Amino acid sequence: MANVAKRVSWSSKGDEQRGGAGGESVPLLNGSPTRAHTPTPTPTQADQTEPPGQSPQANFFLIGRLSNVDLDDDATRDPDSDPPICVAKEIAHNEKLLSLKYESLDYDNSENQLFMEEERKTSKMGFDVLEINRWVVCCFIGIFTGLIACFIDIVIEIVAGIKYKVIKENIDKSTEGGGLSISLVLWAALNAAFVMFGSFMVAFIEPAAAGSGIPQIKCYLNGVKVPHVVRLKTLAVKVFGVLFSVVGGLAVGKEGPMIHSGAVIAAGISQGRTSTLKKDFKIFEYFRRDTEKRDFVSAGAAAGVSAAFGAPVGGVLFSLEEGASFWNQMLTWRIFFASMISTFTLNFVLSAYRGKPGDLSNPGLINFGQFQSEAIQYNWYEIPIFICMGVIGGILGALFNGLNYWLTLFRIRYIHHPCLQVIEATLVGAATATVSFVMIYAMYTYDCQPIAEDPVKYPLQLFCPDGEYNAMATAFFNTPESSVRSLFHDPSGSYNPLTLGLFTLSYFILACWTYGLAVSSGIFIPSLLIGSAWGRLFGIFLSTVTRGSTWADPGKYALMGAAAQLGGIVRMTLSLTVIMVEATGNVTYGLPIMLVLMTAKIIGDFFIEGLYDIHIKLQSVPFLGWEPPGTSHSLTAREVMSYPVTCFKRLEKVGRIVEILSDTSTNHNGFPVVDENEEPEEDNVGRLCGLILRSQLIVLLKHKVFVERANTNLTQRKLQLKDFRDAYPRFPPIQSIHVSQDEQNCTVDLTEFMNPTPYSVPGEASLPRAFRLFRALGLRHLVICNGSNKVIGIVTRKDLARYRLHKGQLEELEMAQT
Amino acid sequence: MANVAKRVSWSSKGDEQRGGAGGESVPLLNGSPTRAHTPTPTPTQADQTEPPGQSPQANFFLIGRLSNVDLDDDATRDPDSDPPICVAKEIAHNEKLLSLKYESLDYDNSENQLFMEEERKTSKMGFDVLEINRWVVCCFIGIFTGLIACFIDIVIEIVAGIKYKVIKENIDKSTEGGGLSISLVLWAALNAAFVMFGSFMVAFIEPAAAGSGIPQIKCYLNGVKVPHVVRLKTLAVKVFGVLFSVVGGLAVGKEGPMIHSGAVIAAGISQGRTSTLKKDFKIFEYFRRDTEKRDFVSAGAAAGVSAAFGAPVGGVLFSLEEGASFWNQMLTWRIFFASMISTFTLNFVLSAYRGKPGDLSNPGLINFGQFQSEAIQYNWYEIPIFICMGVIGGILGALFNGLNYWLTLFRIRYIHHPCLQVIEATLVGAATATVSFVMIYAMYTYDCQPIAEDPVKYPLQLFCPDGEYNAMATAFFNTPESSVRSLFHDPSGSYNPLTLGLFTLSYFILACWTYGLAVSSGIFIPSLLIGSAWGRLFGIFLSTVTRGSTWADPGKYALMGAAAQLGGIVRMTLSLTVIMVEATGNVTYGLPIMLVLMTAKIIGDFFIEGLYDIHIKLQSVPFLGWEPPGTSHSLTAREVMSYPVTCFKRLEKVGRIVEILSDTSTNHNGFPVVDENEEPEEDNVGRLCGLILRSQLIVLLKHKVFVERANTNLTQRKLQLKDFRDAYPRFPPIQSIHVSQDEQNCTVDLTEFMNPTPYSVPGEASLPRAFRLFRALGLRHLVICNGSNKVIGIVTRKDLARYRLHKGQLEELEMAQT
Repeated sequence: MANVAKRVSWSSKGDEQRGGAGGESVPLLNGSPTRAHTPTPTPTQADQTEPPGQSPQANFFLIGRLSNVDLDDDATRDPDSDPPICVAKEIAHNEKLLSLKYESLDYDNSENQLFMEEERKTSKMGFDVLEINRWVVCCFIGIFTGLIACFIDIVIEIVAGIKYKVIKENIDKSTEGGGLSISLVLWAALNAAFVMFGSFMVAFIEPAAAGSGIPQIKCYLNGVKVPHVVRLKTLAVKVFGVLFSVVGGLAVGKEGPMIHSGAVIAAGISQGRTSTLKKDFKIFEYFRRDTEKRDFVSAGAAAGVSAAFGAPVGGVLFSLEEGASFWNQMLTWRIFFASMISTFTLNFVLSAYRGKPGDLSNPGLINFGQFQSEAIQYNWYEIPIFICMGVIGGILGALFNGLNYWLTLFRIRYIHHPCLQVIEATLVGAATATVSFVMIYAMYTYDCQPIAEDPVKYPLQLFCPDGEYNAMATAFFNTPESSVRSLFHDPSGSYNPLTLGLFTLSYFILACWTYGLAVSSGIFIPSLLIGSAWGRLFGIFLSTVTRGSTWADPGKYALMGAAAQLGGIVRMTLSLTVIMVEATGNVTYGLPIMLVLMTAKIIGDFFIEGLYDIHIKLQSVPFLGWEPPGTSHSLTAREVMSYPVTCFKRLEKVGRIVEILSDTSTNHNGFPVVDENEEPEEDNVGRLCGLILRSQLIVLLKHKVFVERANTNLTQRKLQLKDFRDAYPRFPPIQSIHVSQDEQNCTVDLTEFMNPTPYSVPGEASLPRAFRLFRALGLRHLVICNGSNKVIGIVTRKDLARYRLHKGQLEELEMAQT
Repeated sequence: MANVAKRVSWSSKGDEQRGGAGGESVPLLNGSPTRAHTPTPTPTQADQTEPPGQSPQANFFLIGRLSNVDLDDDATRDPDSDPPICVAKEIAHNEKLLSLKYESLDYDNSENQLFMEEERKTSKMGFDVLEINRWVVCCFIGIFTGLIACFIDIVIEIVAGIKYKVIKENIDKSTEGGGLSISLVLWAALNAAFVMFGSFMVAFIEPAAAGSGIPQIKCYLNGVKVPHVVRLKTLAVKVFGVLFSVVGGLAVGKEGPMIHSGAVIAAGISQGRTSTLKKDFKIFEYFRRDTEKRDFVSAGAAAGVSAAFGAPVGGVLFSLEEGASFWNQMLTWRIFFASMISTFTLNFVLSAYRGKPGDLSNPGLINFGQFQSEAIQYNWYEIPIFICMGVIGGILGALFNGLNYWLTLFRIRYIHHPCLQVIEATLVGAATATVSFVMIYAMYTYDCQPIAEDPVKYPLQLFCPDGEYNAMATAFFNTPESSVRSLFHDPSGSYNPLTLGLFTLSYFILACWTYGLAVSSGIFIPSLLIGSAWGRLFGIFLSTVTRGSTWADPGKYALMGAAAQLGGIVRMTLSLTVIMVEATGNVTYGLPIMLVLMTAKIIGDFFIEGLYDIHIKLQSVPFLGWEPPGTSHSLTAREVMSYPVTCFKRLEKVGRIVEILSDTSTNHNGFPVVDENEEPEEDNVGRLCGLILRSQLIVLLKHKVFVERANTNLTQRKLQLKDFRDAYPRFPPIQSIHVSQDEQNCTVDLTEFMNPTPYSVPGEASLPRAFRLFRALGLRHLVICNGSNKVIGIVTRKDLARYRLHKGQLEELEMAQT
């Protein structure tokens, strides 16, 4: 693991020039000749491959593994860059870097001759069969995602049930006989043990399984190839990890990880093979390319949301909101199908498990219970109140994100060894139990509630009178899902305001501390729980102020609070509204939930970004937004692109290819192919006639598709698309391919393999224009040509992701080999 | 009105070549030199403007106005096209034409210097203000759409109430005293009078208001500029038209027209002016271009769906499914906002109108009533039964569409005079009343039902015993919305199977006859009504077969039947599922509804297309699907493009511009601008350096932005973006601009006004590749260049829409100036 990563020094002059450009007219259009754009421009030209076969420890997505804060800034300083290099030592700089580690997915098909031949050979019937296969794959994605969700739910129910029973018995015994401190130790030790197991798996076996996985899936759907994220091993660690962390009583939910699980299942099924188990079923080979795989991963993520919340439409919208740049009717319909199958499977199995097979009343891992719309209808004058709650949610969410941001930076700096991560997680596990216990204990004189006909699952009597239970224990001594439902539906008066206030405060801190640990965990349920606690408190307050008016139902305000808090933390919009509506099972609350989420987002965005975005930025992922930065019209493709570009000729010497591919200082992934039969020109760059990828070249070299220079008439060894598909997605590194000296003198004809019609734009195109083309078509390389179609540069994801708005000004991120 | 339209003769050879290309390898890649691609290629080069100021009668979208069946095929036959021209005389040929009448919308911004200057001058704050304006506009769209829906609903309720009361009293009187034939005449005359008024407005004032407007909005969102479709006059005629047709008792709904109404409202508000009333509010001028306007129209359509069905999410999905090619998070969120506001407004006003202001229980024009999910839960073994219903729905839907297709062809041929249209509509109105009456009368001995506590609104006793009413009258003597609700929720046994069977049959025929009349009308409710009738029948049958099992609730099967029938007719998928779920107010039915809709679509598509698509095809609209035809990889852009291309130079003579723009035989809309300072080449076409639109040239000519040849140093008169925006969208025709002989010798510098970076692809790009670029970015012109960036052709919407799959083969449509 490279703790000291090499950093490409980078001129900050362009940054300053642009910083002030927002309010000026045409400051850069006519060129700033002194702009030291790319002192060592090559690393930015194309995105870089993660060398395959690297150990899992090299996965930099994981929190705690980033090491770009202790960079040796001066190591590669380029003496030619005239302005002084802006050396960033402060911590905040961390998110102003863009990592060169991440490869892009290629959503654009390489329409080379092999591909076109195959497509032309395929009849209408052949396409129909493919389409049917896609549906079959989506059906299986839904079924397996649903089953995984069932497995998680049932195991947690059983194991957590045993745990709570053991502790309850112990506490009941200690309450009478004394020795509550032993109960505390038992509880803390049990929790810590579970959490330690979970954390150990994540930290040592598969770090990519940490957290909810939603940031990683967001990145993947955005077009960034996050290493290890869709592997079977990750799924296994994720599933068992989430079992241990939920049973371990952490302030986490089991819902977020379902989204990641669904995505892994989708990737696995659609490719018809697993590299973890080294098994290739030789099916669905047509789907072995990024375009198809990403579509299926969208479906998997949607199926995961659907299983988690019983929200099939919300799942579709989640996938679309996060991923699909090009809305395709059939794709969306397939995604919806996978979602429906997933929620149906879960519903069917869980209902059968709970003894009501025909009932189908468990559509998701969490459901918010039945809100009686007649009883707690909202009135139009409540809308301003809801908006106020949105404001509170936005502020609390921003506070949560801010605290978690600093905590994450701390973890990146100091807690990057797996052992330390396990220790921290164990500590949090024990602390959670301790805090819960102390809270429950402290409240026993204040808040005892009679056991009503609506039974609390694990009523802790503690020192309450007989027939009563400790209300704080309902919130703490329970799975978070049940606590949320209690807060939504328990009748008015079930909770003391002090209980709710203390619970909100302590759970807020615990959840904030927990998110980012090396355990599998979701943030949805903790957010909902915090929100419903203060929402209920808000409802009680309103009810007091208005002297017990019938409309101020605390359950309704708990729901709005939950929405506000969740919106303030994750800042999702449309999909979250629909998820909340579907989980509530009631369309009535659509408008207020939307208003609350919108307000929370607006207020929260004023302070800090959403939690997922913070974590994505802290990993320096080149994430592309939906729109180019507002004020980026002042930049042109020419100013943004990387140059000079390494090009190949149609007939290229093997030696040159090997040499360029082996150049670890550049590690380009895409190479424009230029015509060689041109009159010699002043700028010795040919006209664009194609684009070839590193992965394609690797396959060519591996199969020795050469001809000797003398025998250009000899036909090359015929390669087939199958050869490329078999190698996908883990193409061997160039170092593993031996090319003899004789072979180095051969040539290879790239014509058949290159994409003959890569997208290109003129250098004068504005950044927004290049951005839209890039984003809408999911490109990996966009070639920049001059007026006579000669290659002058190349734009990749990083060149576009580098520019972003910061306090109303366009700023340029630095790039680093973190 | 041109009854004999000029048709460009067209070689059918390419057609034949391609027809067989599906199963062959590379038949066309290496060129088919004899292919007579474009005997007179120019009309296809660019889409054609509708000359502004044309009378409304020239609106060819309207059914009954198409006259391409009596074309003079030989008038312009080109003697050079070697193969014999395939002259199509048969009727079915009508849908194998592509009209050259329709212009494209331009979703791609022309990023010329003026635009870029404005963008660069705009600060972050400026963009924020624009964004806020967009939200404000969306808010108003929602409010006004909701209010229009309220207006329609309340007026219909009042007027229809009076009508039914008058008729009921008359029938009640006649039942006792004899003279039922007078009641029939009264009923028929009342209906016919209402329908005649509605039809008169549509036929004579604004034909674009006919039908539901959904095909037109689909086309608009697809990027086709349908004349008159978003005008205020259209809205007025639409709204009053739908009042008359619903009150007139036709088999129509008021829901479909809401979508069109919402779209018009959106277009009006977002442009800040109305050309019908010639009023310009001088606001929102930034939004005066196709890109922004189309976004708002999406929001308006969604708001319409939302108001119609109380389905805000369904509205968003409808807009996205039909329109948005590029999914944008903020846009979607705004659309959702408009939808929410619209349903809230409707809910608020209607609830207040009905005396329960706080209740908010009227989210849409139709709601399906409360399904008690506990009572009629479905079981997994019902799923195959639902799928069977989907099959029935698909077959019945295909039958409906097939009959309506023939009827529409008949109308196109014979009923194109407005007077004839009014007469036909009046006739249908009278016939509907007669059929209803006969049905009710015929059933009086078979199906009398006791008046239960759940009151029927207009119980017709007729010859039933006291305290009972005629069940057939519940279905016929009622607004269709109430009939649907009755069929869903009336307890088992409320309907006799014979009643349901006869009702299905007669309403099926009436609805099929009605759709396509020159009246404002929706097809949603009639479809739901037919479907719920046979669905209920199906439920009764099941109940009988299974000897009255509790699960065979006829209401549930009525709902599934309604979904199946609607799906079989309109073939919408995801959005329709969500609309149905939202209108039901119950998430439980999601999966079965989806399965039913999917089955209905698959089965229906096997026979004939969806109703909207049939009507779009019959109008020969160049509609682009989501994906290029499956087997179109055999075609390249070079084979598809139109050529030669009329290009301009950067400094172009005014005379040449005027001459080319005035050439009515071509009517191009977009012109590549080429560099003139080139060495003379063999092919005398310059290198692409920009693209300018007819509309921009018109503005240049109108403002006389010329310089005399001698004084090239003189600065041209400065034009501003405002000048272009003021002229948008109805640019004057070239004939209205006087250019003197002196001015003709001047030159005009196009550099500042052209789009300097039009999208272009090489000629070797495959059709799917060009298609995806075109569709994803919403282009209007795609320039085809050769390897040295010289213009060799241009691809417009028609060149892409011309190819489609027919029975597994790629076929090429002919083009005509219909």
